[in-house]
Amino acid sequence: MISFESDYIMGAHPKILEKLTETNMEPLSGYGTDKYCQSAIEKIKEACKCPNAQVHFLAGGTQTNSVVISNMLNAYQGVVAADTGHVSIHEAGAIEYTGHKVLTVPNHKGKIDGGELREYLHTFYSDDNREHMVFPGMVYISHPTEYGTLYSKCELESLDNVCKEYEIPLYMDGARLGYGLMSKETDVTLADVAHLCDVFYIGGTKMGALCGEAVVFTGNNAPKHFTTMVKQQGALLAKGRLLGVQFDTLFTDGLYEQIGAHGIEMAEKLKGVLRKMNMSFYLESPTNQQFVILDNEVMKKLAKEVSFSFWEKVDDGHTVVRFATSWSTTDEDIAKLESALKSVLDN
Amino acid sequence: MISFESDYIMGAHPKILEKLTETNMEPLSGYGTDKYCQSAIEKIKEACKCPNAQVHFLAGGTQTNSVVISNMLNAYQGVVAADTGHVSIHEAGAIEYTGHKVLTVPNHKGKIDGGELREYLHTFYSDDNREHMVFPGMVYISHPTEYGTLYSKCELESLDNVCKEYEIPLYMDGARLGYGLMSKETDVTLADVAHLCDVFYIGGTKMGALCGEAVVFTGNNAPKHFTTMVKQQGALLAKGRLLGVQFDTLFTDGLYEQIGAHGIEMAEKLKGVLRKMNMSFYLESPTNQQFVILDNEVMKKLAKEVSFSFWEKVDDGHTVVRFATSWSTTDEDIAKLESALKSVLDN
Amino acid sequence: MISFESDYIMGAHPKILEKLTETNMEPLSGYGTDKYCQSAIEKIKEACKCPNAQVHFLAGGTQTNSVVISNMLNAYQGVVAADTGHVSIHEAGAIEYTGHKVLTVPNHKGKIDGGELREYLHTFYSDDNREHMVFPGMVYISHPTEYGTLYSKCELESLDNVCKEYEIPLYMDGARLGYGLMSKETDVTLADVAHLCDVFYIGGTKMGALCGEAVVFTGNNAPKHFTTMVKQQGALLAKGRLLGVQFDTLFTDGLYEQIGAHGIEMAEKLKGVLRKMNMSFYLESPTNQQFVILDNEVMKKLAKEVSFSFWEKVDDGHTVVRFATSWSTTDEDIAKLESALKSVLDN
Amino acid sequence: MISFESDYIMGAHPKILEKLTETNMEPLSGYGTDKYCQSAIEKIKEACKCPNAQVHFLAGGTQTNSVVISNMLNAYQGVVAADTGHVSIHEAGAIEYTGHKVLTVPNHKGKIDGGELREYLHTFYSDDNREHMVFPGMVYISHPTEYGTLYSKCELESLDNVCKEYEIPLYMDGARLGYGLMSKETDVTLADVAHLCDVFYIGGTKMGALCGEAVVFTGNNAPKHFTTMVKQQGALLAKGRLLGVQFDTLFTDGLYEQIGAHGIEMAEKLKGVLRKMNMSFYLESPTNQQFVILDNEVMKKLAKEVSFSFWEKVDDGHTVVRFATSWSTTDEDIAKLESALKSVLDN
Repeated sequence: MISFESDYIMGAHPKILEKLTETNMEPLSGYGTDKYCQSAIEKIKEACKCPNAQVHFLAGGTQTNSVVISNMLNAYQGVVAADTGHVSIHEAGAIEYTGHKVLTVPNHKGKIDGGELREYLHTFYSDDNREHMVFPGMVYISHPTEYGTLYSKCELESLDNVCKEYEIPLYMDGARLGYGLMSKETDVTLADVAHLCDVFYIGGTKMGALCGEAVVFTGNNAPKHFTTMVKQQGALLAKGRLLGVQFDTLFTDGLYEQIGAHGIEMAEKLKGVLRKMNMSFYLESPTNQQFVILDNEVMKKLAKEVSFSFWEKVDDGHTVVRFATSWSTTDEDIAKLESALKSVLDN
Repeated sequence: MISFESDYIMGAHPKILEKLTETNMEPLSGYGTDKYCQSAIEKIKEACKCPNAQVHFLAGGTQTNSVVISNMLNAYQGVVAADTGHVSIHEAGAIEYTGHKVLTVPNHKGKIDGGELREYLHTFYSDDNREHMVFPGMVYISHPTEYGTLYSKCELESLDNVCKEYEIPLYMDGARLGYGLMSKETDVTLADVAHLCDVFYIGGTKMGALCGEAVVFTGNNAPKHFTTMVKQQGALLAKGRLLGVQFDTLFTDGLYEQIGAHGIEMAEKLKGVLRKMNMSFYLESPTNQQFVILDNEVMKKLAKEVSFSFWEKVDDGHTVVRFATSWSTTDEDIAKLESALKSVLDN
Repeated sequence: MISFESDYIMGAHPKILEKLTETNMEPLSGYGTDKYCQSAIEKIKEACKCPNAQVHFLAGGTQTNSVVISNMLNAYQGVVAADTGHVSIHEAGAIEYTGHKVLTVPNHKGKIDGGELREYLHTFYSDDNREHMVFPGMVYISHPTEYGTLYSKCELESLDNVCKEYEIPLYMDGARLGYGLMSKETDVTLADVAHLCDVFYIGGTKMGALCGEAVVFTGNNAPKHFTTMVKQQGALLAKGRLLGVQFDTLFTDGLYEQIGAHGIEMAEKLKGVLRKMNMSFYLESPTNQQFVILDNEVMKKLAKEVSFSFWEKVDDGHTVVRFATSWSTTDEDIAKLESALKSVLDN
Repeated sequence: MISFESDYIMGAHPKILEKLTETNMEPLSGYGTDKYCQSAIEKIKEACKCPNAQVHFLAGGTQTNSVVISNMLNAYQGVVAADTGHVSIHEAGAIEYTGHKVLTVPNHKGKIDGGELREYLHTFYSDDNREHMVFPGMVYISHPTEYGTLYSKCELESLDNVCKEYEIPLYMDGARLGYGLMSKETDVTLADVAHLCDVFYIGGTKMGALCGEAVVFTGNNAPKHFTTMVKQQGALLAKGRLLGVQFDTLFTDGLYEQIGAHGIEMAEKLKGVLRKMNMSFYLESPTNQQFVILDNEVMKKLAKEVSFSFWEKVDDGHTVVRFATSWSTTDEDIAKLESALKSVLDN
């Protein structure tokens, strides 16, 4: 069965697997002190045009959010996120587990609006009772968002300005950053991200790695003894090489960009098919996740031939579903989806 | 200056102070093992008509919410509360500090609706992704609410039914319970509360005690070694007598009811004055907290002669303020408020 | 029955109760913003000869240790304490509850030795694996210790020097500080404590208050938004006046010193009686707690007439017990103890 | 340079890498729901002769200890471990980070003695103050220990009996379990481990995996919604296949045993060389870690040609170092070490 269920259905991009195999029998020191981690760090700093960046590798997205957010907040602070943010809903309370509240603001197709954020912070600091409330201590955004949408450079600048005004860091969850950077509709580069965010992560897992995310602190602002706290939260791999080798490969000869570009190319083809079939889009997404409203009968029939993700109920007869492309999606997958859709809709 | 700022502006009810003085030189064992704690527990069990209740004394409201909620939830669970709930907003993240999320549902004049709660729980258990989400593990209500409103017996039964259906405890924050029980408009008794809630607390601080809240577990459901966890969270007083003597007094000869009744009587007189002055009520409150919308100019002038609490901004020219009565409010206070209001409005 | 069980068997020192009664009907603002808290703070600063001190009031000792330690440590740090320290053993894991390890060093009659502390820190910083270990981030001492012993000024200076060398704060648990300051055998004044410690607390509960401890940050080093974190940990009393009035009284006309002096005078008489009866002391204590090794048969008989605390088993036939004096101990109590002891030993 | 630095210096065992490559382009569902995880679970249950076992895969050892221990303890409990235990010293406070204390007992060559454990628990339950102390809620052992030593079956039975008597689970950290099981000097089988422990983990990282540990709950005692708590602690990999495929390979055709057997064979040869060179062993280890006391001059010279781990200082002139073998150690490595040692000692 063909699968558009997610961008982590396959193993690793073949080049990553090759490099893991090639370096397998080199004895290397542990805990991220090996030469591949070091090389990957240098390449990421260069790709970000941020020579003073501090880069750390972690294994997964929720882990990264948890370790970064909890260690950048003071005890009296929480993190501001869209009410649709991954940290708000789908991480089983990982942020609260570390003792911090997620303070939600309304989303606009998954995004936080800079003006609303300023108003939120202004209101907080105008409240006489604020010493009895959780202080907003960081802003979390995802890019692409959980709905595949993207911030424009101007929108990121607006968020950055508000954060600077209130002296709190801006943090970007870049689980799918590569698909965002290679979207046809973005004006945001990796260097822009590094310039506008105080900390962000470059997602590996959904971009062809077996696991791994690269956290980038852009302003010499990594918390002191960050490695100790990574260890403390159970997030330090003994064989740090597993992460180093993968990111070294992703940032060699433009592989990360190629993976993003391929996923986007396939997403454009997917959108073409869905439009051709008169599918109703839940919203316009310029990245690798496409959200479509299906009649429940159609959904059930289609599910027998194609995997996709159930997203949310619209009404008793309709459901939002997600189709995701990735580095591994092929023209053949798209063609099969088209034919499956046709066959379901014709009956 | 007269003060309607809160129901904790004075020291203790005179009878409490007398009893503290009377018992002061009796040597007693520590940590809540003394005879006054024991006596207070028995009286509370009787007042609740709940012979098997387990009663523990704590010092303050946020502490009580934090200790009770964190120790009744499993790690994978959060507490459901109205978005206006005290635990949601005004406890500086005390629940999150213990590692648990506060899951908010919309309030209706401060209250949670049983039907909406059922729908919320149903939606949660219908979500395929729920293993990646925080499980609703308890329902928190305040009675009276943060807006002075009250649940009817029927509304409490509805919440109780939903909680039983989903096998999660119903917890009532009774910081001002006594004012609620003595309201002219309630059909809920203390025995009803004990019957319908799995755990609740009887507020002391706002009902004439210097400090202290009595937690009542109604179904032999106190967490094992609860005292150890009270100690662990820094909430165990060495001189437990301070709490025992106060609650023993409050539950002797109907003092708790008298205090509630007096606060309510004064609130009714206050409402009379406010109505007479054509004040605009933010909402109808049948208890000791009254919320009024004031013109900002009026507010400023009045504030020079009377203390009250700023609640929230309505628009650029108007503000919601709170007037609270209590056991200590006098007819003279009400008369002075009337004359101050008159004088401000006449100018 | 007479009781030497602890120094918190009675209610409040009469002067405290008088002042609570006297001020009871003054309307005051909440959460420690009232004038009695302010007055108490000023008096404490003066008593400490530390004009820039920041003073906060909390309700109990474990709570104070937990709030202070957790908010002064970084995430990667733990607190160093004697293996007999209250935080190490008798607080139900309150420090660990906040996410931090208690790192123990050997005690010498309850005390930490400065030289051993330096060696401990030196060893830690010499360990290649230290990034995988908990960093020592604070030193906790109790004075008097859990065994009633006292640091000399020279010993405190030594600890202070080591802490300065390693740039970590020195914190003193002064639950019984007043008895320490008034000991016949001390050369340490309250001003010395304020000068040598980065933060300490002046115990109230065991010095005649109903509850309450005053935390003193001596170097303008209170954590930012400390009140918010006090609230977050459930430790902020609505009626802050309860603490303010008590400490204002304790620091008026030398009451705190008088209470300490009386407790010590009674302890000296107690020691006299115990010596006269040829009791065997577990160690020499110059303060209000006296530890004696009793034959188990004697212990059982004595326990019928006098309350004291079981401390620890020595061997199958002998037990260490504690007799504590306080502000409330009388000559009559001592005389009754003597006669009870005589009668038990004669049989 | 040859390396005996650790058993995680190399990448994966070649068969694991082959299987990862072979399965790489199969679309699989995420978060551990794939068929390779399922297959691995079945094989592990069979290998353990424990058909009702519940098996979960995690990424690393500290993570596993943290997730398992924190979720099996009640709030009022801590975990008992040897003072040399990994959780006691070398996990940066990961257990305390979850709110629980590590309660230490003396080690005997890294091991806990059953009799001493019983005495420890007996003393705890005899203490009148125990409600103010951390309850021992679990026993943590490592096998092989941090010093390479092994429990005999009889010793494990003794620990199991004590744990049953006090109704607390026995948990084994099996980071290097495979080397323990294949030791020439053990009478403990994997089935014994499953029979005698309530929960344990089968280490992958140090046994040829890139990462991964398999937690085995042996008595249908996995905490409810364990996956949600794994997610909450940031430990759930999106590509669960990475763990499933590796453990499926390790438990196919006896690979796990072969890896253990090879590591042990190499360790025996290593010991032969060290003995021949008259090295002084710090203790007798029957597994793949060998601890030797080196003269500091010898150590420095040898370090130029061979990697090993600094363990601890003995005195100013001598140091304990560790040589570790693994699945990847070759006869050539041993020969080179012998020649390097000879050359250093001859000079």
